[in-house]
Amino acid sequence: MGSSKIDFFHVLYNSKETGTKARFGVITTSHSKIETPVFMPVGTAGAIKAVENRELEEFDTRIILANTYHLYLRPGIDILSLAGGLHNFMNWKSSILTDSGGFQVFSLSGLKKVRDEGVEFASHLDGSRHLLTPEKAIDVQRIIGSDIMMSLDECLPNPSDRRTVEKSIRRTFDWEKRCLQHFKLTENKYGFPQYLFAITQGGTFKDLRQRSIEDLSELDFHGNAIGGLAVGEPVDVMYELVNFSTDLLPFEKPRYLMGVGTPVDLLECVDRGIDMFDCVLPTRNARHGRLFTSRGEINIRNSKFSTDFRLIDDEYSTYVSQNFSFAYIRHLFMAKEILGMQLASVHNLGFYLKLMEKIRESIRENRFKEFKMNFIEKYKSKDFNN
Amino acid sequence: MGSSKIDFFHVLYNSKETGTKARFGVITTSHSKIETPVFMPVGTAGAIKAVENRELEEFDTRIILANTYHLYLRPGIDILSLAGGLHNFMNWKSSILTDSGGFQVFSLSGLKKVRDEGVEFASHLDGSRHLLTPEKAIDVQRIIGSDIMMSLDECLPNPSDRRTVEKSIRRTFDWEKRCLQHFKLTENKYGFPQYLFAITQGGTFKDLRQRSIEDLSELDFHGNAIGGLAVGEPVDVMYELVNFSTDLLPFEKPRYLMGVGTPVDLLECVDRGIDMFDCVLPTRNARHGRLFTSRGEINIRNSKFSTDFRLIDDEYSTYVSQNFSFAYIRHLFMAKEILGMQLASVHNLGFYLKLMEKIRESIRENRFKEFKMNFIEKYKSKDFNN
Repeated sequence: MGSSKIDFFHVLYNSKETGTKARFGVITTSHSKIETPVFMPVGTAGAIKAVENRELEEFDTRIILANTYHLYLRPGIDILSLAGGLHNFMNWKSSILTDSGGFQVFSLSGLKKVRDEGVEFASHLDGSRHLLTPEKAIDVQRIIGSDIMMSLDECLPNPSDRRTVEKSIRRTFDWEKRCLQHFKLTENKYGFPQYLFAITQGGTFKDLRQRSIEDLSELDFHGNAIGGLAVGEPVDVMYELVNFSTDLLPFEKPRYLMGVGTPVDLLECVDRGIDMFDCVLPTRNARHGRLFTSRGEINIRNSKFSTDFRLIDDEYSTYVSQNFSFAYIRHLFMAKEILGMQLASVHNLGFYLKLMEKIRESIRENRFKEFKMNFIEKYKSKDFNN
Repeated sequence: MGSSKIDFFHVLYNSKETGTKARFGVITTSHSKIETPVFMPVGTAGAIKAVENRELEEFDTRIILANTYHLYLRPGIDILSLAGGLHNFMNWKSSILTDSGGFQVFSLSGLKKVRDEGVEFASHLDGSRHLLTPEKAIDVQRIIGSDIMMSLDECLPNPSDRRTVEKSIRRTFDWEKRCLQHFKLTENKYGFPQYLFAITQGGTFKDLRQRSIEDLSELDFHGNAIGGLAVGEPVDVMYELVNFSTDLLPFEKPRYLMGVGTPVDLLECVDRGIDMFDCVLPTRNARHGRLFTSRGEINIRNSKFSTDFRLIDDEYSTYVSQNFSFAYIRHLFMAKEILGMQLASVHNLGFYLKLMEKIRESIRENRFKEFKMNFIEKYKSKDFNN
């Protein structure tokens, strides 16, 4: 396992600029080479909402995220097993990361009962009862056949008091150790290796974050995630906790900040040493007519766009921004055409993926800080008059 | 106008088989060469529902249909005029045919008042009052800038009694003459020629159909449509009226059967001499999980598809049928993923367009009757076990 870990991730380049922990690396799975920092589009139920696989390939998506909780409930592990795993089922050629299911159990399902063994929950679809244990989380992800699996952690509401968080990180540590143990006792089902990440927790308490990181770093995981952030705390607190965490997390393993974030968040957290991100923002906002552009996020329904026949963005070009005007996309949303959601989703994901590409390039060329400053200045200008 | 008419359409090949009026031809606009028989995907509001332009290009779509009524109400002619017409607005490079708006006025809008001048109606969107006259129908289509425009006709509910239909075809004749006159008095707005079709009516009364055809055929339209069919009459009645009509319609002008139909309808009506079709069926059915395949139309939600991991169709291949299984598409529909509607729409339109391509090929090779028979036999078998 030691050697596969070394092959799994390499930091290839550390920015030589002062005042940044930004780094360029590569994760290698049997499905793809993933250059980091990377943003992973979210494909909750085995589909990126409103975006086709070939469109993801078009902007060189090397890894997507899928949700174990959703896939476990529908189509279910029997079908996924018969299909030969999720890659086959959805015909996705590149890598897949799955979460453990924990986050959705804690946020979506009803009638949760948490005990040391695991968490009992009722499906949000049909109320059926299920027990998610650390071992079960691994078993299900073995059947899904994701390239990178996540350990089961306890997800607390924010804010949670110190005593609750302290108790929770002990349980999380116990669950994750069991995940790792079960991971080592089981094998991949489809002939390619799977990797397992730990999730560090600790709420907004630095010393508890430190304890969680120190406990988990000892163990033989392939990567480390920071969980429990971007759940309502102020953005400056989030940045500070990320910065604090990356100072403690091992250098030689990928660092994944779960569920983050806006384009500015990505830049701020790359700056603080994060390698991997996922977020529903680009696709969810797209479905609500909110488009990301280099000059800020816009609400395409705004009437000022009704006669704006310029193409959407000249700098972060996608199929959409190269072919369609503000006015046309606005019309699609006003007319409630599904195509509006599709084009906005393709555009937003394309924007995110191209942003990450530019970030990686700027790190390799020791101009990340400059790139970040220029991007944020333009992005916050919201200047659509030139 | 005479010479442009000759350039506009040519019958290039008549099937030499006995018992068919199937013919292969070409319509030439300044945007595309359209081989006939052709099926035109319906882009009601300036967008084919859930399908991107590049996907239409992928299966060589040379012409789409857009609805004047919808575009007139939203985005409205001011925006379409500023955009430089619908081609520019939606960035569609090939041809566009627009209906006159009449059909939707009669079927969708409220508070209709029909008089000789035109039809007054209330928008189904906001209740605003509008008057659609033959002249207005042309003016709006001039602003839309479609390649082929349709004349304004009166659309009756089915069934309508003989006296109502007789009165209506007189009004339709009068309106269409006014359309033609106004067409000749006005010019295209965007530097490319537009063409104008007549619509023949007559309900289910052969002698009234004959009168409508004879009246309108005298006039200098570029093509003729058969309207008022596929509105609830038995399919055999429809086929018989199509057959009757094509015997009377001029040979040298394209014949367009409006709003038809199923794959079998297309074959039956090509057989009876139709050159052009449009129908919402492939896209509408797709959004409801109904997929067209060479072995019949299926409801992908059917549980028998839940573990059917075969690709959807080996014969009418599209991006979708080449890449995704019955089971995966079913999962997308069960999980209410927008992507399900997208992939089903791409698949169904691809199926229709490829069917038309095979039809044209079979006509040129004098094996249309055989192709038709084989297609229908397999299509009606609904045999998904081999």
